[in-house]
Amino acid sequence: MLEGTWYLEKHTENLLFLHKIKRHIYHGKTAYQKVDLVEIEAFGKALFLDGKIQSAQVDEFIYHEALVHPAMLTHPDPKSVIVLGGGEGATLREVLRYPVERAVMVDIDEQLVKLCEAYLPEWHEGAFYDERSELVFTDARGYLERSEETYDVVISDLTEPLEGGPSVMLFTREFYKTVYERLGEDGVLVVQSASADPFYNDFVRDVFVTLKEVFPVVKVYHAPMFSFQMDWAFTLASKGRDPESVAREEIQERISTFEGNLRFYTPDLHSALFKLPKFLLEVLPKGRVITDENPPVWLS
Amino acid sequence: MLEGTWYLEKHTENLLFLHKIKRHIYHGKTAYQKVDLVEIEAFGKALFLDGKIQSAQVDEFIYHEALVHPAMLTHPDPKSVIVLGGGEGATLREVLRYPVERAVMVDIDEQLVKLCEAYLPEWHEGAFYDERSELVFTDARGYLERSEETYDVVISDLTEPLEGGPSVMLFTREFYKTVYERLGEDGVLVVQSASADPFYNDFVRDVFVTLKEVFPVVKVYHAPMFSFQMDWAFTLASKGRDPESVAREEIQERISTFEGNLRFYTPDLHSALFKLPKFLLEVLPKGRVITDENPPVWLS
Amino acid sequence: MLEGTWYLEKHTENLLFLHKIKRHIYHGKTAYQKVDLVEIEAFGKALFLDGKIQSAQVDEFIYHEALVHPAMLTHPDPKSVIVLGGGEGATLREVLRYPVERAVMVDIDEQLVKLCEAYLPEWHEGAFYDERSELVFTDARGYLERSEETYDVVISDLTEPLEGGPSVMLFTREFYKTVYERLGEDGVLVVQSASADPFYNDFVRDVFVTLKEVFPVVKVYHAPMFSFQMDWAFTLASKGRDPESVAREEIQERISTFEGNLRFYTPDLHSALFKLPKFLLEVLPKGRVITDENPPVWLS
Amino acid sequence: MLEGTWYLEKHTENLLFLHKIKRHIYHGKTAYQKVDLVEIEAFGKALFLDGKIQSAQVDEFIYHEALVHPAMLTHPDPKSVIVLGGGEGATLREVLRYPVERAVMVDIDEQLVKLCEAYLPEWHEGAFYDERSELVFTDARGYLERSEETYDVVISDLTEPLEGGPSVMLFTREFYKTVYERLGEDGVLVVQSASADPFYNDFVRDVFVTLKEVFPVVKVYHAPMFSFQMDWAFTLASKGRDPESVAREEIQERISTFEGNLRFYTPDLHSALFKLPKFLLEVLPKGRVITDENPPVWLS
Repeated sequence: MLEGTWYLEKHTENLLFLHKIKRHIYHGKTAYQKVDLVEIEAFGKALFLDGKIQSAQVDEFIYHEALVHPAMLTHPDPKSVIVLGGGEGATLREVLRYPVERAVMVDIDEQLVKLCEAYLPEWHEGAFYDERSELVFTDARGYLERSEETYDVVISDLTEPLEGGPSVMLFTREFYKTVYERLGEDGVLVVQSASADPFYNDFVRDVFVTLKEVFPVVKVYHAPMFSFQMDWAFTLASKGRDPESVAREEIQERISTFEGNLRFYTPDLHSALFKLPKFLLEVLPKGRVITDENPPVWLS
Repeated sequence: MLEGTWYLEKHTENLLFLHKIKRHIYHGKTAYQKVDLVEIEAFGKALFLDGKIQSAQVDEFIYHEALVHPAMLTHPDPKSVIVLGGGEGATLREVLRYPVERAVMVDIDEQLVKLCEAYLPEWHEGAFYDERSELVFTDARGYLERSEETYDVVISDLTEPLEGGPSVMLFTREFYKTVYERLGEDGVLVVQSASADPFYNDFVRDVFVTLKEVFPVVKVYHAPMFSFQMDWAFTLASKGRDPESVAREEIQERISTFEGNLRFYTPDLHSALFKLPKFLLEVLPKGRVITDENPPVWLS
Repeated sequence: MLEGTWYLEKHTENLLFLHKIKRHIYHGKTAYQKVDLVEIEAFGKALFLDGKIQSAQVDEFIYHEALVHPAMLTHPDPKSVIVLGGGEGATLREVLRYPVERAVMVDIDEQLVKLCEAYLPEWHEGAFYDERSELVFTDARGYLERSEETYDVVISDLTEPLEGGPSVMLFTREFYKTVYERLGEDGVLVVQSASADPFYNDFVRDVFVTLKEVFPVVKVYHAPMFSFQMDWAFTLASKGRDPESVAREEIQERISTFEGNLRFYTPDLHSALFKLPKFLLEVLPKGRVITDENPPVWLS
Repeated sequence: MLEGTWYLEKHTENLLFLHKIKRHIYHGKTAYQKVDLVEIEAFGKALFLDGKIQSAQVDEFIYHEALVHPAMLTHPDPKSVIVLGGGEGATLREVLRYPVERAVMVDIDEQLVKLCEAYLPEWHEGAFYDERSELVFTDARGYLERSEETYDVVISDLTEPLEGGPSVMLFTREFYKTVYERLGEDGVLVVQSASADPFYNDFVRDVFVTLKEVFPVVKVYHAPMFSFQMDWAFTLASKGRDPESVAREEIQERISTFEGNLRFYTPDLHSALFKLPKFLLEVLPKGRVITDENPPVWLS
């Protein structure tokens, strides 16, 4: 039946999506963003922030496995991990599959995290209650700047920097220098980097070029995100470790204890994700360096 | 400006797309299907058949390069190629980059091919006028059954078999047996196989299982199709050649003459495309065999 | 902000409305119909049954005043009134403005009435609790057929007879004969009769012609319904009283006690409502008689 | 079939319409406005200016008959008429039904008038070629200010004054004073006045109050406009003639020669149109006077 309630998502000015709604879960605003939690017929439970889909039940596993595992496995033995953003708790969930000692999650929007905790248990699967988890509700940049602790892996799971949005200053060269300082010797950073498509790829190329100013190893990889209606980019940066040099056997062994829980990532896929389409390879070097004085602004 | 003309595409019953239209090119019907040729703001010129997007200017190269090159390069030296369907002429365009002697294209819808010839020159780039090309406007199954010629590569570039649509009998075991007989010793078949997603993958798994009944080597691969709003599956079948065994150096050499024209495919990408997400690996064997008595029917 | 939840109403196959939703009140199903209670930005609280708007806060008063007052004032002194349908309670509300002794409301959908009672107090304004009100949850046709009571005014406030819907047998000549028998000497019947437009007026003309088979006086009138996006028709039938013969002064006097509560109806408007556009006058006689054997079916 | 091209009309920020398109006629821009001429399934040929529907084949007759006849019949014997705006030519068509000697139409947008002449013959029915017609392509205000001629009837058939639009200065007290001076002794002015609804009626009340500053007789009337999805207001002003005092018999006689061509207007309807809903009567006096210094601005 066509009639009824639909969620209108403005993918761009020129492409609108209408998602048939099965169930309304929550509509409201936090101090930082408009939150819509709905169950949609096509993708199950879904979280929309300021009108943009952030995560959907049917394929959140692709995003979160693709975000976490390449970075965790590029580090030889991560014990201390920090997640920047990551409100739904699924990034934390994937991190905790490893024998880490400490997993910090810093999200500025406490109310959003509480909503996700209550309404999206399929995402966090109890990760918030793991004794290794530490939740901090503050600005991630200030937190890292004020801290002197170091981490093995830093995972940037932030929304794209829309004008006036909370994440604008978390994609700059200056911020990445702070991250570099907070990383241990074998440290690895991964940044969710928006679309990998042939026409709206400004963001990933700017992130790539900016990270190249700070880190010796920077590689972009990608994974298909059906609920985002596109191929998605991630950028991995390290002080020296090359993600493509990790042996297949090492990966196989390290994920063996939790391989049954994975639904997207495989040892064979690890290297394949880093093989990019030619059009993306060609544009990546053409990005501009993002600085505090010249932060990125994505128009919604 | 929100107001104006939009193309409404019913992706599924539960997900509608509205594409802002920049220019109307052609709206009409052929003997087989409803044809809408429009220039949309998001994707450039686009072809919709029976309301479903078939190809868009901004990323048709991904689809056509992904469809053609893995198969052509799996064969050691293709001289004779047949394209089933392929109305826009871009599949032919990619085939003709190789030193083939003969490239036959069999499409049932002559009127559609003429429309594409006139309005979509960016797709065919003159491929229809190459002296090696031969266009036949008839039913592809009947054509192959009546013929005794053999081909090195067969490329199935057909629309999914919607009920009553023209391609229903071109995905069955019986038809693939005919294809097998028409293929030479090193013969390779590739079949565009619709979505590679975690929820609507019935089609690719049925094609996979059906081809396994006929061919010794069958492998599924995938490529991101932005204008289709999803990751797309292709199935390659052969009498013995393994696409993943082709040496990177051989690929490099064979594409060297036209590498400058490629925008998606690279030698590094060749093998990566065959590495599938775990969820897809797990469901592929669960397909059902498609037969003439039990043909596939996709509901629109 | 364009993004968010919208109510999609299929006005016809060829005209869709998207209503921006301000607040979700209730979504569910009764034994008879799909119910959506939402607050929409354009019209305030609104009730949708099976996807069609039934009533909106911003102009329900037009519909209910136009439905009730012409009939009540055509009768010289109504004491006993029965409302068929009328789930929201606003028809009852308008009836109770008069010094009636008894106001029966017969609605088949008890669950719907309970939802309206709880969520739409602006409609019923307590009418359900008036000691003169009597609510009966049963099929209105059976109720009238089994009863031997008579009424001064009968108000048919039923949804249009969609296929399989609950009101299909409440618009037939046989049913109107039963109504005739249940009406007192000066009895008046009024039937909400759907659109008064130049193109989709089949329903009002069929109701008109059918009532002409049973009642000596039958007149169609109209009122603008903004939330229905059209001019709306009503048909008044009587055993002899002519609505256009009621003196302006009599109307003025009889409504004087509650005139302050009216927002649409005025003594001057009374006769004006019965003046129809020429296109409607011309088509009314062309309707067909609706019978039990040949009931009306409106396609949604 | 849901798929295909639709015209998206932003009725307000909170209510969108999607009109199924049957045929594309013309899409382009004049010096003054964006023009879309399409045939829509629901309403036949339709003209959209800057994304708002202006006129549709199925009920343009209601608008144009309601605009012209009350004013023409309020004047005892109009010989000289001027139409301000009126691009489609249908206002002129209705004017020419009377034995006028001269019918001037002043529209600033020549290109639009030419498009209507070519593509909308059902509207003008040759009115442009009547020897009594005189077309002037200029600003209507300047034209009246520079002229010293007088007219019996002035018909303001202008789009609502959107910011920056061509009609902003044609609704002010100063302009209406000029109109007053250009009108003969029995002169009548009629102004199309946008929606007559209970919530967005600012425009009609401002026009009403502004005309009251200049003319001794000012009356609002209304007619249902289905393709506009609402009841529509018109304001009639005169130097003394009262539209409601014209005898039914006089109307009957004066329209007798062309009554067969009318589809909306009837002698009985004449007075009924002037009977307004109570909510509108109550708000009309609350408008503000529109002046050159403080022109109206409608946001689109």
